[in-house]
Amino acid sequence: MSAFKPVRFVDVHLEGDFWRERLETVLTRTIPSQHIQLSAHGILEALTLPNPPPPLRFPRNHHNFTVQVFWDSDVGKWIEAASYALSHRRDADIESKIEDITDKLERAQAPDGYVNCWYLQREPDKRWTNLRDNHELYNLGHLLEGGIAYFLATGRRRLLGILERYVEHVRTTFGPGPNQKRGYCGHQEIELALIRLYHLTGERKHLDLASYFINERGRQPHYFDEEARRRDEDPKDFWAKSYEYNQSHMPVREQTKVVGHAVRAMYMYTAMADLAAVLKDDSLKRTLEVLWADVISSKMYITSGLGPAEANEGFTEDYDLPNETAYAETCASVALIFWAQRMLHLDLSGKYADVMEQALFNGALTGLARDGQHYFYSNPLESDGRHSRWAWHHCPCCTMNSSRLVASVGSYFLSRSDEAIAFHLYGGISATVRLAGGQVALREVSAYPWSGDIRIEVKPETPFAFDLKLRIPGWTRNATASVNGTPVSVEQGTKDGYLTIARRWQAGDVVALELPMPAQRIYAHPAVRMDVGRVALKRGPLVYCVEEADNPGGPVQRLKLPRQSTVKPERRADLFGGIVTLTADATRLQDNGWQNTLYRSDPPAETPTTVTALPYYLWANRGAGSMLVWLPES
Amino acid sequence: MSAFKPVRFVDVHLEGDFWRERLETVLTRTIPSQHIQLSAHGILEALTLPNPPPPLRFPRNHHNFTVQVFWDSDVGKWIEAASYALSHRRDADIESKIEDITDKLERAQAPDGYVNCWYLQREPDKRWTNLRDNHELYNLGHLLEGGIAYFLATGRRRLLGILERYVEHVRTTFGPGPNQKRGYCGHQEIELALIRLYHLTGERKHLDLASYFINERGRQPHYFDEEARRRDEDPKDFWAKSYEYNQSHMPVREQTKVVGHAVRAMYMYTAMADLAAVLKDDSLKRTLEVLWADVISSKMYITSGLGPAEANEGFTEDYDLPNETAYAETCASVALIFWAQRMLHLDLSGKYADVMEQALFNGALTGLARDGQHYFYSNPLESDGRHSRWAWHHCPCCTMNSSRLVASVGSYFLSRSDEAIAFHLYGGISATVRLAGGQVALREVSAYPWSGDIRIEVKPETPFAFDLKLRIPGWTRNATASVNGTPVSVEQGTKDGYLTIARRWQAGDVVALELPMPAQRIYAHPAVRMDVGRVALKRGPLVYCVEEADNPGGPVQRLKLPRQSTVKPERRADLFGGIVTLTADATRLQDNGWQNTLYRSDPPAETPTTVTALPYYLWANRGAGSMLVWLPES
Repeated sequence: MSAFKPVRFVDVHLEGDFWRERLETVLTRTIPSQHIQLSAHGILEALTLPNPPPPLRFPRNHHNFTVQVFWDSDVGKWIEAASYALSHRRDADIESKIEDITDKLERAQAPDGYVNCWYLQREPDKRWTNLRDNHELYNLGHLLEGGIAYFLATGRRRLLGILERYVEHVRTTFGPGPNQKRGYCGHQEIELALIRLYHLTGERKHLDLASYFINERGRQPHYFDEEARRRDEDPKDFWAKSYEYNQSHMPVREQTKVVGHAVRAMYMYTAMADLAAVLKDDSLKRTLEVLWADVISSKMYITSGLGPAEANEGFTEDYDLPNETAYAETCASVALIFWAQRMLHLDLSGKYADVMEQALFNGALTGLARDGQHYFYSNPLESDGRHSRWAWHHCPCCTMNSSRLVASVGSYFLSRSDEAIAFHLYGGISATVRLAGGQVALREVSAYPWSGDIRIEVKPETPFAFDLKLRIPGWTRNATASVNGTPVSVEQGTKDGYLTIARRWQAGDVVALELPMPAQRIYAHPAVRMDVGRVALKRGPLVYCVEEADNPGGPVQRLKLPRQSTVKPERRADLFGGIVTLTADATRLQDNGWQNTLYRSDPPAETPTTVTALPYYLWANRGAGSMLVWLPES
Repeated sequence: MSAFKPVRFVDVHLEGDFWRERLETVLTRTIPSQHIQLSAHGILEALTLPNPPPPLRFPRNHHNFTVQVFWDSDVGKWIEAASYALSHRRDADIESKIEDITDKLERAQAPDGYVNCWYLQREPDKRWTNLRDNHELYNLGHLLEGGIAYFLATGRRRLLGILERYVEHVRTTFGPGPNQKRGYCGHQEIELALIRLYHLTGERKHLDLASYFINERGRQPHYFDEEARRRDEDPKDFWAKSYEYNQSHMPVREQTKVVGHAVRAMYMYTAMADLAAVLKDDSLKRTLEVLWADVISSKMYITSGLGPAEANEGFTEDYDLPNETAYAETCASVALIFWAQRMLHLDLSGKYADVMEQALFNGALTGLARDGQHYFYSNPLESDGRHSRWAWHHCPCCTMNSSRLVASVGSYFLSRSDEAIAFHLYGGISATVRLAGGQVALREVSAYPWSGDIRIEVKPETPFAFDLKLRIPGWTRNATASVNGTPVSVEQGTKDGYLTIARRWQAGDVVALELPMPAQRIYAHPAVRMDVGRVALKRGPLVYCVEEADNPGGPVQRLKLPRQSTVKPERRADLFGGIVTLTADATRLQDNGWQNTLYRSDPPAETPTTVTALPYYLWANRGAGSMLVWLPES
């Protein structure tokens, strides 16, 4: 196993235009507006205990479930996102808001350490009676991630302390001991949060508890069966029918297929990969490699969207990737980034970095509108114009997943080992990385993802030898590189998608990397029945789509792209602060002569037109209109 | 208005192979097996009163609804189907079963005439409290249609008498009077049944009650609002959100768009057309013409399927016709046949007959398996192999709609006025029709729908003049005709899709009609985004599909049909007792080189193949496999 580790988000600064714009938007608009929404929707108020609970805003559905049980997690994710924001720029107002939440949690905390505002307020005698459905440990996981981020950004430890006391209660409650519950959470999240806590504190007990939750999952007798019986329910009445839904259908090491709820799966794999790295657990690593191959080779949209079905918010059959009805929850793409990054730390391989980048630019970014205050929960690859961004959602999980990802995106650019620095992403950052031989200041300058011209300044505090590893994306061909103007053979120096430049570096060294970024036509495996006869357009890491705003004259579904047509990149300073569009000669189906006719034996006439495609992540920012990723190819 | 009227099913005999096979299957297998299923599923048992009601087989769902409330209707529809069967061949066993049901209904009937086994058994004090959801009048409608058919087939009037007493109770209960409920049924059906009763008995009061229900529908203050408040419910909590669901969102004459639950809509339009004909109500007729144009021009699958969405079992947006997820309930296509026939009696126009035929061969027939004992409820136009026929359904409405349609299909072949006989369908029948000038025996001989060569023997009891009107289907070109060998100009003699041959007919006259039936490529309006770049195949009235059984080697979704490829009809004696398939040179996408690859920049290789299509109504009779109606055209 490679010994690569993440570079913390506080050590990476975003300088490139692309990410500065997103970051500024998140800092100035998303984080404050999310606090307003959390307040307006009663989510913050629900933290105030004791408090006569108001009527449910979201009455229990026919599965006896209300989204309000995981409101604590929404607060935790907002704290995490806000804390990442604070690491870029301190903000007294935001900090006082987090302190206020901390006050509430402190008051709410039970003498034994338990903190769950739903249960404490409404059903204090029912805590830990429905791990399958009610997200208690999931909530703790997100609060814990928030508490850790807040501590890292500000040095304040009070919130984290509350949560550490809660973790101690959880450790007492769950485990294989005679007076413990052999349970685990229906929605994975606590596991990866505990590993974060381990990395922060170095306390082995947190790693052990995460391991316990992962290892116990899916064992027989099944905890969720027993728990249901204790509630006087028949386990067979589980609304999702199968424990595949929460990946507890079998012990995790026996799993070979990616199934069930997509976000749960991704959070679990993230924790498993963390454990595999820390514990050097080859059985977990091999399991993850099988699961990775399964999802990447048969279950992922070209946009990195995961989980086609709304019914289980998750996976169905291999190659079942409907476009217009794609669920592809934003959270799942964000979580895929988490998992991919962890896989990179098990094996520094471009196959993981390619997917991480694909998910970042086409999955996660899509979830957040340009204005920073509107969102996508599901991410279809086709729309008749009815799919639009919303200002809030009754299940607001995706909103804060978008903001915490953008505010911490720097942490996905680099990894380090004792003797090497690896660049996974490009786009304009500066960072300080400590290696065994000393500290290295780095500056990467580029207009990525619009251009593949990259310049990296390497500045060790004193000259010393280490490896600089530069990702050569899977989508490029004939990349070139040089150090201080002297060419480096990319072909010979690249293994598993990374070009290694080993030398004694000294201040003033400059690496130039050129990643050709032509427009590409992409085809899907012929088993993806929805995409037969269709083509998608990509350039660099970006998947493109055709939107009505750039192609007026009717629904974009009437466009056809001839295979012979040349697809040309075009710089457009007038769009979204400057982007690259793709244009090509195409045809448009005409509806003249079709009045009152639904079917006929003459095909519709086609007239020449130019099709303009823009990056998928930018769609639905200019009002309602049709959109299409997979174009019929003629 | 034309004065055309139906020819009753008892006066038309099926002689052609195509319909004899279906009829024999329904008589010998479907009707008996449906009785067994009704018994096995507790539906017949539920008629036995008084009876301690067993636990619900279908517990109330989260809308507080159980399908058991309309079990009476399933019994009514079975009686109707069985009675049509008896008109072809009496059967003492079937008749004793209907008598047994009659005994039960007679015992169940309340002193005031009310008969609804659900309410009488379980909630006797709640009758008429939830017309919106609970189908009481709908049940009566279907029982009434059954009672009428049974009387016509056997002369037995006991069942009909029970139902007539129930109708009297309904007449007392509903209406504009001071002590009456101004209600109507959430699921239309009673209206068309009452008109049937009017036609049978000549009693104007039944027509008036049907008129009342139609005219009251959608008026303000809204009955379903008031009724909900009487149940202490907020009318806004109606689960379907809008009264469009049951077409009571506005008075019927103000409706211009086909909306909501497809079967309810079709049953209502059928009754409206009946009323328009009897009452010479031009406002109703004009409304129906607008609604007809709306559904036909933007909301009907090529198979005649109606209602793309499962959520409301009904209509969505114009041109929203997804193929794989098409709901297209069998009942809706059956009901479209009812409506189209009624429209024919308002205006003898081929546009109605074309749709009636299309719905018959591609919608209604599809719902019944070759074995006569398996069914389709929804009728997608594409399948990955997971959509299969079932032996019964928790909501068995479609099963008896299929059988009653096939057993009475003769009644859709012909209409008559005082001086004319109109042929709408062909396929081998004999019939006796009474005109003002006397009785006419007819014999139509053809291998339709496999061949368009039709021979009609016309035999008036004495020679007299009348018009013979022969439908020239919209799908044919260059039809030819002759009388006793003398050519008749089809072009000059055809108006609105009917060729009129006016002469003094005498026994021995023979008409020959030749309807050329080439294979056709059909394209959808370019606004049907799902079908852009795709083509469907038709021949005569039959829509074809490509099924894996005839095209082994992987999913049929990997086939592409070049536009230049000639589509050839081929007689296949080996398939389903002899059918015509369509074959063409095509290509198949290959997946070699795609292992572990979901997306790539090279398109899949294509290899030449021959594609074989078979009539859509025959699909899914040879085990699980993929199916496709709309093929990608290259």
